[in-house]
Amino acid sequence: MDVPDDLARRAADLDVEHADAYRRELFSLPGDLVYLDGNSLGALPCAVPAALADVAERQWGDRLIRSWNESDWWGAPERVGDRIGRLVGAAPGQVVVTDSTSVNLFKVFVAAARMRPQRRVVLTDPDSFPTDLYVLDGAARLAGLTVERVRPAEVATRLGQVGPDVALVSYSSVDYRTGELWDLPELTRVAHEVGALVCWDLCHSAGVVDVRLDDDGADLAVGCGYKYLNGGPGAPAFVWAHPRHTARMDRDAMRQPLSGWLGHAAPFEFAPSYRPAPGIARFVCGTPPVLAMAALECGLDVFAAAEPLGGIAALRAKSNALVELFIALVEARCAGLGLELVTPRDPANRGSQASFAHVDGWRVMQALIARGVVGDFRAGEPRSEGARRDPALDGDLLRFGFTPLYTRFVDAWDAAEQLRDVLASGAFRDERYGRRAKVT
Amino acid sequence: MDVPDDLARRAADLDVEHADAYRRELFSLPGDLVYLDGNSLGALPCAVPAALADVAERQWGDRLIRSWNESDWWGAPERVGDRIGRLVGAAPGQVVVTDSTSVNLFKVFVAAARMRPQRRVVLTDPDSFPTDLYVLDGAARLAGLTVERVRPAEVATRLGQVGPDVALVSYSSVDYRTGELWDLPELTRVAHEVGALVCWDLCHSAGVVDVRLDDDGADLAVGCGYKYLNGGPGAPAFVWAHPRHTARMDRDAMRQPLSGWLGHAAPFEFAPSYRPAPGIARFVCGTPPVLAMAALECGLDVFAAAEPLGGIAALRAKSNALVELFIALVEARCAGLGLELVTPRDPANRGSQASFAHVDGWRVMQALIARGVVGDFRAGEPRSEGARRDPALDGDLLRFGFTPLYTRFVDAWDAAEQLRDVLASGAFRDERYGRRAKVT
Repeated sequence: MDVPDDLARRAADLDVEHADAYRRELFSLPGDLVYLDGNSLGALPCAVPAALADVAERQWGDRLIRSWNESDWWGAPERVGDRIGRLVGAAPGQVVVTDSTSVNLFKVFVAAARMRPQRRVVLTDPDSFPTDLYVLDGAARLAGLTVERVRPAEVATRLGQVGPDVALVSYSSVDYRTGELWDLPELTRVAHEVGALVCWDLCHSAGVVDVRLDDDGADLAVGCGYKYLNGGPGAPAFVWAHPRHTARMDRDAMRQPLSGWLGHAAPFEFAPSYRPAPGIARFVCGTPPVLAMAALECGLDVFAAAEPLGGIAALRAKSNALVELFIALVEARCAGLGLELVTPRDPANRGSQASFAHVDGWRVMQALIARGVVGDFRAGEPRSEGARRDPALDGDLLRFGFTPLYTRFVDAWDAAEQLRDVLASGAFRDERYGRRAKVT
Repeated sequence: MDVPDDLARRAADLDVEHADAYRRELFSLPGDLVYLDGNSLGALPCAVPAALADVAERQWGDRLIRSWNESDWWGAPERVGDRIGRLVGAAPGQVVVTDSTSVNLFKVFVAAARMRPQRRVVLTDPDSFPTDLYVLDGAARLAGLTVERVRPAEVATRLGQVGPDVALVSYSSVDYRTGELWDLPELTRVAHEVGALVCWDLCHSAGVVDVRLDDDGADLAVGCGYKYLNGGPGAPAFVWAHPRHTARMDRDAMRQPLSGWLGHAAPFEFAPSYRPAPGIARFVCGTPPVLAMAALECGLDVFAAAEPLGGIAALRAKSNALVELFIALVEARCAGLGLELVTPRDPANRGSQASFAHVDGWRVMQALIARGVVGDFRAGEPRSEGARRDPALDGDLLRFGFTPLYTRFVDAWDAAEQLRDVLASGAFRDERYGRRAKVT
């Protein structure tokens, strides 16, 4: 097959067209790497090493305990939370950064169950990332709930059947394997019609999809800091709750179960009993991880630098164009080589990734990584009870994530060319690619 | 009053005698500071800035997602946990580093309640640090427990009354305000006699008291990484459970409620339902905070460097001598200046701190800090329902923590001299010391 010259030209043209959303100069990425795994671990913002050195050497080393006030370590959960709020359509004072996504999921599940004490059913996606399923099962056991695993497309039907008994509808914005973007605003609307609460997991959309929490009116949301937000490995996560829930301070106000001292209304009074803080701060639990917070703030600084150039809308537009081009390139260059697209073609229905099934997906990805194209691999066989059995998912998945802030259209071009070469040459069959290691 | 020359000589002599436990060269501490607040935030180990730079620039920046395996980021909770285990008398494989103390308290409270389903009472100290009380109340509400706040000295009596209904006895090893060290081994013995489980909070003892978890047979323990372990602000915390509980894998095995994916027996199988990991790893929840783990490892490296010189026993011996000298100095030099010791004189009954009540404690501490002697302040008035009303605690508390790794006997001398001067001169009455800020 010939090189599709029109696509090559288009890649170069698109890099010019979307130059405003491209801030690679603010990231420290090896020059020889095409990094398409920012949906697992975002790249290192250049500012991080100096920020960590300042926190460690000056704030911690020289000023010691005094930095809790002087450098406003105490304020980090709300200060950093507000910056994430700008990316997910939440006004200031509605997001806090605290704990991990898993811990925050537990908080929001129990908080929701308590607000609907007469309702005992939770609906969630059988294809959710495992921690969402595991934590929900754990919370349900404690709170006396029954979890039903229902695919997003079937939620409206199920709500028609058991709606009055549904306390919570909890879904991820984007399927982490296929990249499908669910219509959570619509799902929220139908759930609210029957009086259920709704939680959104934004791990695979915050920073790259134009989420509008306040406008679309969910009740609760969580997300992580280390994917598209570039906060570093194991960065702290965030929680959002609609102010209609957290503005209340009476006995029926939203309460989360991990009542640590920093979620107290007045932690420094050392009062004998817990009283939740006003607003979203009640979702904080223990002492904030100051070093990790500093790294995450650097990741968010990059978004602030991009904001005057169109912000999240410009990033979303570039992300859509990147994925569209990549799909076109792969389908043109790798036709007949055993790949099958499992990501929706309509950008309105997908996040910022393209996933292809291939029967030897694991080996293909290892061979690609050896050539400097880093995507990742997900076992395509659905493992969850009740999960779909889509023929396209029978193979293993190659997952390519596109972070518009540091990915060029010519990177998509290079990745597709390497993918073609790995497949056409049979290089992926080399025995060194045969053993699976842990994946993220 | 004259300078007590014998005490001055004794301070110098003691620094020679205990030189093996002194590793100040491994810490970056301002030379003009007498830092007696390591029980709030430990000092910066010199190795931290380079370790953070390596994790950020090489592991994260250059190797990106590959570092999860290459640099064993996945293994950090157990690897760092084993290193803490050495300091608290726990064999390898029994401690994990994960989440915050508050989150871990929730896990162990609910885990304990589940192992004693027929028992509905928890005993805890009314004078506990607030987060222990708040989290226990939150867990009790979910798990259907009743919390009784009973002072350590009264636990045996109360167990005689309601023992068969007590699921858990949860106490801090050291009172964070007064520095009293409770006889948790004895308390554990009497609790076990009535079939209750026991949890120890080691925040104020790990790294400075010779805790022997395996030998003394508690059931559960938690502790933080940022005090005597020198792990940095908001460092991750740890959890220990006796292997008699975590060795079991059957339905009655110990289970904690925050069932995140990294506590799963096989997280990378992405199985549809949660199955707890063998051993203590089941207490891990979400993705480990890699930057914070690296800083904590540096803190533990200092203990490893001190280990051939006597380890925790040598540190405990020096700590006892430091506090004893400081008490003697203060009582000799500040007699009649309004201080009253609230810490036990017998080293067997105290942790690594000395606390003095003073009616103007807040101002006195601010004046001391302005002179480069950093201790901290705790409101002495007991705030908890049922807490004791000891006349010695009617004033506010000056709290001085002694970290043997970086504190000299001559520092204790300097601190006592400054304290005398602040009190005798009335300098603490200066209006600039009159306003309270947040404290830790």
